[in-house]
Amino acid sequence: MCNACVIENVKQSMMSRRQLFSGAAATGAAAIAAGALAARPALAQASGKVVDLTHVLDENFPTFDGVPGIAYEEAVNFDSSGYQLWKLTIFEHSGTHIDAPLHFSKDGTSVAELAPETLICPLCVIDISAKAAEDANAMVEAADVEAWIAAHGEIPEGACVAMHSGWAAKVGTPEFRNTPDGSFAFPGFGKSATDLLAGMNVAAIGVDSLSLDPGNSADFAVHNSWLPGGRYGIENLANLDQMPATGATLFVGAPKHARGTGGPARILAVI
Amino acid sequence: MCNACVIENVKQSMMSRRQLFSGAAATGAAAIAAGALAARPALAQASGKVVDLTHVLDENFPTFDGVPGIAYEEAVNFDSSGYQLWKLTIFEHSGTHIDAPLHFSKDGTSVAELAPETLICPLCVIDISAKAAEDANAMVEAADVEAWIAAHGEIPEGACVAMHSGWAAKVGTPEFRNTPDGSFAFPGFGKSATDLLAGMNVAAIGVDSLSLDPGNSADFAVHNSWLPGGRYGIENLANLDQMPATGATLFVGAPKHARGTGGPARILAVI
Repeated sequence: MCNACVIENVKQSMMSRRQLFSGAAATGAAAIAAGALAARPALAQASGKVVDLTHVLDENFPTFDGVPGIAYEEAVNFDSSGYQLWKLTIFEHSGTHIDAPLHFSKDGTSVAELAPETLICPLCVIDISAKAAEDANAMVEAADVEAWIAAHGEIPEGACVAMHSGWAAKVGTPEFRNTPDGSFAFPGFGKSATDLLAGMNVAAIGVDSLSLDPGNSADFAVHNSWLPGGRYGIENLANLDQMPATGATLFVGAPKHARGTGGPARILAVI
Repeated sequence: MCNACVIENVKQSMMSRRQLFSGAAATGAAAIAAGALAARPALAQASGKVVDLTHVLDENFPTFDGVPGIAYEEAVNFDSSGYQLWKLTIFEHSGTHIDAPLHFSKDGTSVAELAPETLICPLCVIDISAKAAEDANAMVEAADVEAWIAAHGEIPEGACVAMHSGWAAKVGTPEFRNTPDGSFAFPGFGKSATDLLAGMNVAAIGVDSLSLDPGNSADFAVHNSWLPGGRYGIENLANLDQMPATGATLFVGAPKHARGTGGPARILAVI
């Protein structure tokens, strides 16, 4: 079990939190930690389970402009060389991927310049799947953020706030991207929500759909405000239906190529 | 502080371990955890600090074959479109990157198929920088693994065992890759070490040099045995000089493209 260390940390953390909240072990450093803990929600679970929030990227993965996000060319052949590797052509914003500030600001922070501390985050999941089932262009609005806080407590500092709309289940179908008439239609964040989150110490937003803005957005209002504000986004997340509303820790394996506006990323969560 | 959750987990874990080892809190689940803990070394540190073990990848990053590992082509221009992105050409084994089993086995596990649980690992660092300073083709040998175990205890299950040779500091110089006469010369693993590690529950090996095998390897003995054995490797790691010998947790942001033999990865550690 490779994740044994993390499992133990989480289990021990839970145990300690229970002790702290019951006042049984609030001495020295424990008392300091208890003060810090008081302001944030307890871990929702402590299974130590690793969940992969990343879709497999291939030539068929849906993209915003309809052009395949990745192409393969054989660079070394196994039969002739005893090993093999691909020369890949990748459009940065393909698959489960990062939007760095530089994507929507001429001189913003590149994906390589994101602070490493912002790539390990408490994960908050806002579930709008019910309204997205009724309206393909449903949005996370400020009221959804406020309802989440009322139910789960303040958003932890440095969090990634992710929209769970149920769209990941449609990734192999035309409905991931379009209505039957060919218009874009998928859920995203509304600017009312991201304006509210921008006033908090939130590192990132994430969506399980093709774009931070909903499919019918005319102005990319969230891209044009959230990213130039110096924070990043994650698009095309998988498996958010397996995540608790709060308590998971997100590991954002953002690519680190110079001058990158974003790129395919490996996103893992521990619950 | 985005990493506050992890910091707390680690701090609470340390606190609990101290309590467990002193016998003060060994009740219920704690007793089970104590049993598991007894077999593994205590965390070396509990700072909660995030360290980025990833080099920035650009056109100048040294590669095995001398061909630039990445090339950029403008796909969308900011001034004309209000946003920007690159079309990238990437040879999979460039920069800080993963070697998946498929790289050296015709039908092996692709980078997309690696079990997510193997991407979050206890990190063990074997420091051979002293002998690498004397011999550019120095190797981690079985004796180095045995000495590490004698000093630090058994290698934790599911660990990544990494070679720290001091080579990361040379990455901007010709010496990262070559001797002055142009021969390959850099440290790597010896097969005696990886054969020993293959008998343990070790998920991965990592190096701070260009290849798992040393530069003067004639047969890629480690590539040809470790990778077909179903485990992965990480090449060109950065900042291992900031890592404790044991106690850090590694987050391996491996890419997830279908049929990938490996690829640039974001590697983060929490100490």
